[in-house]
Amino acid sequence: MTSIRFLQPNLDDSNSKKTTSSNPCSGIPSAFVLHGYMFTVFGVVAIKSSWGAGTSRRNWERIIEKSKVLNPLVITSYDAYTTRNIKGLAKSYLAKEGTTGFGYYTQGKKKKKFQNFFIKGKKWSHKKCLATLLKKLQRTVVSHLEMGMLSEGLVQILIPAAALVGIAFALLQWYLVSNVKVSGDSSNGFSEKLIEEEEDGIDSLEVAIKCAEIQNAISVGATSFLFTQYKYLSVFMGVFSAIIFVFLGSVKGFSTKSEPCTYNEGSLCKPALANAGFSTLAFLLGALTSVLSGFLGMKIATYANARTTLEARKGVGKAFITAFRSGAVMGFLLASNGLLVLYVSIILFKLYYGDDWEGLYESITGYGLGGSSMALFGRVGGGIYTKAADVGADLVGKVERNIPEDDPRNPAVIADNVGDNVGDIAGMGSDIFGSYAEASCAALFVASISSFGISHDYAAMSYPLIISSVGIVVCLITSLFATDLFEIKDVSEIEPSLKRQLVVSTILMTAGIAMVSFFALPSEFTLFNSGAEKAVKNWHLFFCVAIGLWAGLAIGYTTEYYTSNAYSPVQDVADSCRTGAATNVIFGLALGYKSVIIPIFAIAIAIYVSFSLAAMYGIAVAALGMLSTIATGLAIDAYGPISDNAGGIAEMAGMSHKIRERTDALDAAGNTTAAIGKGFAIGSAALVSLALFGAFVSRAGINSVDVLTPKVFIGLIVGAMLPYWFSAMTMKSVGSAALKMVEEVRQQFNTIPGLIEGTGKPDYAKCVKISTDASLREMIPPGALVMLTPLVTGTLFGVETLAGVLAGALVSGVQVAISASNTGGAWDNAKKYIEAGVSEHAKLLGPKGSDAHKAAVIGDTIGDPLKDTSGPSLNILIKLMAVESLVFAPFFAAHGGLLFKFL
Amino acid sequence: MTSIRFLQPNLDDSNSKKTTSSNPCSGIPSAFVLHGYMFTVFGVVAIKSSWGAGTSRRNWERIIEKSKVLNPLVITSYDAYTTRNIKGLAKSYLAKEGTTGFGYYTQGKKKKKFQNFFIKGKKWSHKKCLATLLKKLQRTVVSHLEMGMLSEGLVQILIPAAALVGIAFALLQWYLVSNVKVSGDSSNGFSEKLIEEEEDGIDSLEVAIKCAEIQNAISVGATSFLFTQYKYLSVFMGVFSAIIFVFLGSVKGFSTKSEPCTYNEGSLCKPALANAGFSTLAFLLGALTSVLSGFLGMKIATYANARTTLEARKGVGKAFITAFRSGAVMGFLLASNGLLVLYVSIILFKLYYGDDWEGLYESITGYGLGGSSMALFGRVGGGIYTKAADVGADLVGKVERNIPEDDPRNPAVIADNVGDNVGDIAGMGSDIFGSYAEASCAALFVASISSFGISHDYAAMSYPLIISSVGIVVCLITSLFATDLFEIKDVSEIEPSLKRQLVVSTILMTAGIAMVSFFALPSEFTLFNSGAEKAVKNWHLFFCVAIGLWAGLAIGYTTEYYTSNAYSPVQDVADSCRTGAATNVIFGLALGYKSVIIPIFAIAIAIYVSFSLAAMYGIAVAALGMLSTIATGLAIDAYGPISDNAGGIAEMAGMSHKIRERTDALDAAGNTTAAIGKGFAIGSAALVSLALFGAFVSRAGINSVDVLTPKVFIGLIVGAMLPYWFSAMTMKSVGSAALKMVEEVRQQFNTIPGLIEGTGKPDYAKCVKISTDASLREMIPPGALVMLTPLVTGTLFGVETLAGVLAGALVSGVQVAISASNTGGAWDNAKKYIEAGVSEHAKLLGPKGSDAHKAAVIGDTIGDPLKDTSGPSLNILIKLMAVESLVFAPFFAAHGGLLFKFL
Repeated sequence: MTSIRFLQPNLDDSNSKKTTSSNPCSGIPSAFVLHGYMFTVFGVVAIKSSWGAGTSRRNWERIIEKSKVLNPLVITSYDAYTTRNIKGLAKSYLAKEGTTGFGYYTQGKKKKKFQNFFIKGKKWSHKKCLATLLKKLQRTVVSHLEMGMLSEGLVQILIPAAALVGIAFALLQWYLVSNVKVSGDSSNGFSEKLIEEEEDGIDSLEVAIKCAEIQNAISVGATSFLFTQYKYLSVFMGVFSAIIFVFLGSVKGFSTKSEPCTYNEGSLCKPALANAGFSTLAFLLGALTSVLSGFLGMKIATYANARTTLEARKGVGKAFITAFRSGAVMGFLLASNGLLVLYVSIILFKLYYGDDWEGLYESITGYGLGGSSMALFGRVGGGIYTKAADVGADLVGKVERNIPEDDPRNPAVIADNVGDNVGDIAGMGSDIFGSYAEASCAALFVASISSFGISHDYAAMSYPLIISSVGIVVCLITSLFATDLFEIKDVSEIEPSLKRQLVVSTILMTAGIAMVSFFALPSEFTLFNSGAEKAVKNWHLFFCVAIGLWAGLAIGYTTEYYTSNAYSPVQDVADSCRTGAATNVIFGLALGYKSVIIPIFAIAIAIYVSFSLAAMYGIAVAALGMLSTIATGLAIDAYGPISDNAGGIAEMAGMSHKIRERTDALDAAGNTTAAIGKGFAIGSAALVSLALFGAFVSRAGINSVDVLTPKVFIGLIVGAMLPYWFSAMTMKSVGSAALKMVEEVRQQFNTIPGLIEGTGKPDYAKCVKISTDASLREMIPPGALVMLTPLVTGTLFGVETLAGVLAGALVSGVQVAISASNTGGAWDNAKKYIEAGVSEHAKLLGPKGSDAHKAAVIGDTIGDPLKDTSGPSLNILIKLMAVESLVFAPFFAAHGGLLFKFL
Repeated sequence: MTSIRFLQPNLDDSNSKKTTSSNPCSGIPSAFVLHGYMFTVFGVVAIKSSWGAGTSRRNWERIIEKSKVLNPLVITSYDAYTTRNIKGLAKSYLAKEGTTGFGYYTQGKKKKKFQNFFIKGKKWSHKKCLATLLKKLQRTVVSHLEMGMLSEGLVQILIPAAALVGIAFALLQWYLVSNVKVSGDSSNGFSEKLIEEEEDGIDSLEVAIKCAEIQNAISVGATSFLFTQYKYLSVFMGVFSAIIFVFLGSVKGFSTKSEPCTYNEGSLCKPALANAGFSTLAFLLGALTSVLSGFLGMKIATYANARTTLEARKGVGKAFITAFRSGAVMGFLLASNGLLVLYVSIILFKLYYGDDWEGLYESITGYGLGGSSMALFGRVGGGIYTKAADVGADLVGKVERNIPEDDPRNPAVIADNVGDNVGDIAGMGSDIFGSYAEASCAALFVASISSFGISHDYAAMSYPLIISSVGIVVCLITSLFATDLFEIKDVSEIEPSLKRQLVVSTILMTAGIAMVSFFALPSEFTLFNSGAEKAVKNWHLFFCVAIGLWAGLAIGYTTEYYTSNAYSPVQDVADSCRTGAATNVIFGLALGYKSVIIPIFAIAIAIYVSFSLAAMYGIAVAALGMLSTIATGLAIDAYGPISDNAGGIAEMAGMSHKIRERTDALDAAGNTTAAIGKGFAIGSAALVSLALFGAFVSRAGINSVDVLTPKVFIGLIVGAMLPYWFSAMTMKSVGSAALKMVEEVRQQFNTIPGLIEGTGKPDYAKCVKISTDASLREMIPPGALVMLTPLVTGTLFGVETLAGVLAGALVSGVQVAISASNTGGAWDNAKKYIEAGVSEHAKLLGPKGSDAHKAAVIGDTIGDPLKDTSGPSLNILIKLMAVESLVFAPFFAAHGGLLFKFL
């Protein structure tokens, strides 16, 4: 902005040098393009660009046309290419009907002359007017010239650095966990460290060996299941990669020619075939990262469970730290891996795409699709596995044979513990990774077709990734609160400590978001809002991300209120057990329904605020805000099943009642935080899928999704039905698999001599096999439903109906998911409330084995598939359908709606 | 059309008589208005009118402007007023920029001269061109000139006649039922008629006296409950009437001046204050009719139950006919009353409104609101009453004390039987009446703002009412198939006979619709389609009504498949009872979810077809089609609870096992048909509320309900949450009331000496009081939720958000309602399947008292509130919110959205 001069063009038009303007200020330019910025004198049209010298003529044309001003003035840096372009441009504009003036100024080394503005071939040179012009320019424009303060280079360091720090931190935690030895080797040190507690009459060495054995069995079972599952998934990945490639490649008939861009019509974008290839590649990368996330989580969980049990002998604090650190390994590995792979993919894809960011980020959405589709099978398969084993084990063991949970005599007990690791750890890890990947992709895609993308502002464009980077750092600090800054001395401190994690990370993250928003973003910019441009300020985006973050916390706390047995809702459900299982179920269902109210209002407010401030991009970053603290969220989530397993191992290894009490306390706190985590997952899924939905609608070229058109309405009502169809499938699957498990377990009890007395040995492997087979077979139909619905709907009925389906599935699925998760959580904790018998009221209902307790166990069993299979899978259903629609949007837009075409 | 001539106007413009057209056919008029029809030469703009002579100048202007032709030609009947109007019109048009010609032709006694057409003051008189013109006119227009063949007079006879025939038929059935005597009087004839059966050792006189006593107790209980409920409702009606009057009156600031119409801007409509008054009146009429429908149904049901029991002694056929006739009394009374009151209201309102049909039918929508709001409280209150009693009675009696259902020793048994009558009869009657009233009002309202209304075609306008009239006649014929044409000789024939009713009525009705569509409707006409006109043919409407009718049947049969124990779904649920209540509940929930699929597709197809053919009007008449056979549907529906009561009375009166078996068979068939009926109710509710939604959107002046706007989306997601909130309230209410009932029953068993042995007498009244108090208290919060949501949303957030709420509640509520009803029905029949033990498989699971049976009873108990309280109430939720929004639409449009205005 230091020296603005006008350079006279060397126009062929010979009239151009005459100056005949009678009104000195008439024809004053109404818009400027300055270093790629487009300004109107009053208010900014604002397309910032780093095109600088290299801007093509078509891009200039597009910017000018977009500004809808007749007398454009272009100010740009000088080079021969630009000057040539500009001259041609000026000529063609002045020849155009309606354009009365055209001016330009190039700033360069050679020509610094102040140049005039041309009005239909007449030079307009009144100094005073030019001064006015420049003044206006400076006053209204200068403030918009500043870019985000973060330079491209800094961003390129910050993101990978944060990811690597996260990975290093995870490895450190792993190392700390590995210090606990589980082998029977007496030199491992635990025997001398066993200072605080005494094992009453139990040989600690023998116990440790038993722990190692059980851990090994669980680990082997889980690994073998996952590998079998991956075999199936690799077939799916292969087939679906082909589908993606063929469908997307066919958009322009497999042409290898570059095409004009969709949003930036002036530019040339890479051919559709390249997008098809890179989308497929991104899909595979996402799928592999998702699988890796789940697998690593499972590995650390099965590594940590026995260690937690052993540490429990030294005190609850030690055990807590072990379980928490292990959870943190998973949380940080997943968050960092997700970010790193995405970041590296973008860098690598850019090598091909160059300045075609539209194509680049369109292809990158395949990453979200890959992550989420693996998550679907992980959640559904894992969910069926774990609940078939759990329900089967409970129904025969606890209800029929009256043996305790996790009793080693129960043949399904190993399958149950394996299930925790493949369902609640690997499945959940994939799920959250999917959410994270999709939210990032949605935000990146929406940004790429907004001013960030069109003007190629790298720092602003990377805003979603920077938020995630800051999130990793924030979570790292937060986790120190759990492991180093405070020490757990009593079981009553566990739950507050975990909840503190959420609050601390949310508060720190709010500050982090504020910093990022002010440093990485220009103070004002424009966003794409279904066809129109929307002016947005950087603090708007701060509010969007922050409201997502805090809405997540609100949802989490509501979930806790409805599922923790410290509050009246669960206590009422427990109380209803007095009159039997029927009232328990009625009250539980009612509780689940009721628990939907506040989360929905929280989501609605977050949507309204973020959409009003920054359109669909606002929603995408709100979702990212909710997910920005996933490292902490996942650490807490994974902590639960690890503690659950630790308890199981304690029971199976025949450890003392005291140890079991400690692991139970760890587990109970884990249940509550798991419920909170599910709340987060659902809330973020709602926001993510809305953002993806918005991106899909933009990509498919729909300007409105009007409920009043029949195409949309039938989509809406059918979409709202899908969560029911899906839940019916998954619940029935759990039910059938559980029935088989029950029969097997009963048979073993009846046929294996001495099993119930503890002298015979159950055939664990058979139960593992039943769960494995059932889950692999049963995950296919619901998976197919989710994967095929967008393809079939889009192809046959077109994008409007598909948009209806997505909206319907979203608004209905959220309710079903929240109510199912909370109902299940409440039943689980109502049972625990009666079992624990802490209050007078609870004692009245208990003890274990009372009629009320039996009724509570029935509720708990019903809740298992609701809260661990169908409920959480629904998150994936709504997200996955949306991201799949987005990826295939170019195909549907080109070839969709066959049925209506031929009717 | 016989003699078309052109009358020369006596224009002041002196130039007008010159004929200077060089091209003989230039200036040929491009549109005609003929007897109020508006035509373009090619294709009809089509506004038919019986305004004839009285058409105001503003109306002419509007028609012409709407046709968007520059050179209009008006052809109308002659009178001084019209001629004066037309002349002024011609003058002003010829003075207008752009209009180059104006012509008119008045057909009257005095002036029959052929007159010329004016082209900007120049007379255009070429005979040849006029001949061409007339030819075109005849060829393209004559076909549109025909009106529906039914004259206004015939319609005015047909509708009330059908209603009166229906009432007469109902009274006849009542008389036939009354021939069965229940008093102990030995002259009543049953003792000599007892030819087929022998009561084994039971004194038939004593039994009859006991029956009379029990019947009396039930009748007194039901009547007293309903009167107490009506006291509450009268307060509600008073308050809500005031709200309607004040809100609607305030639209134009309580002005008593006439206003330009909303859709027919040229005409003057009655003041908003009058609409407020008449809407309030219609609301009260609807409410009273609803109450009357419920009350009469309850009366006949409590009159018929003991008679059915007594007839059962003579054979299953006699009992069936008695129960069926009693159901028919209710069905025909309700259908006929609903039609008659609506018809008479329209006639009476017309005395004030005259030609202002827009205001007339806007006010009439109050009728739907009144009917539906009473239905809400009837369903919710009755549902809580009956299920609190049922669940309470079962939990203590069947589960704890092991005494049979309906055992007179159970203190809650009378409350249970009263509940059947106030919930399943009175509540359901009000509900279906509400659907019927709303569907009619929606259709009438949409028609009134379409060409029927604007052109005042009475027969076409009355199409919805004529369909209902034909429906009554069709149902009358159909019912003869059950009572006279076939005779039931075996229990196995009951269910087919009831199902035959549905099929026969559907087939006959299809023919009836075809007749009505061809006779009552013009062969082509235009309908209002969110701002645009849509050309529709009469056979389009036939398809709309027919697809609604058949979709209803499809939904009914799907419901049967999922809830009858003759098919595998229920058998699978029964089978899952082997492993206990938990798997039973899991399978039952999964079944309910799955049962949603086909009905939703049926609804979606019906919506798509009817909307595509005839916009929102198509959907309204599709809903009416589904409801056209309500007389039969209700007869079957009411038959169920009557049979249920009859069984209860048989048990309580100590009649033989044989009798009980017969009444059980009647009851079992009733269960299935009740499930079918619920399917119909939900399907029609979906269509009705969509039609009301469409009418609301038109009335509120919204042109699109775009999911992509945040206002609409937050409405959508919050609306989708409402069914959960509502279900949570009603289920919790049932649960709490049942807990109280359980405690009371337990206490009576514990404190009343000899009760369980049959020597003590239980205190029935106390249980009745518990149910009464609970239901009256608990119906208020869910009622308030439904009634206040549209008011609060519309006032604070405006019509867009309200539209979102309605759409969300609709698409989500339908799913919850269908799954809840079917899950409950399936559990009920799974239990009956085990109890009946007909197949090998069933015997394996049974007998009564086995573990599997106990698990089935738990499922049945959970299903009670789902299928009889929350599920069916949801129909009302979605309809009622829509009709309330429609009634208050003028207020919201004028003053709504306060929150966004001030933000």
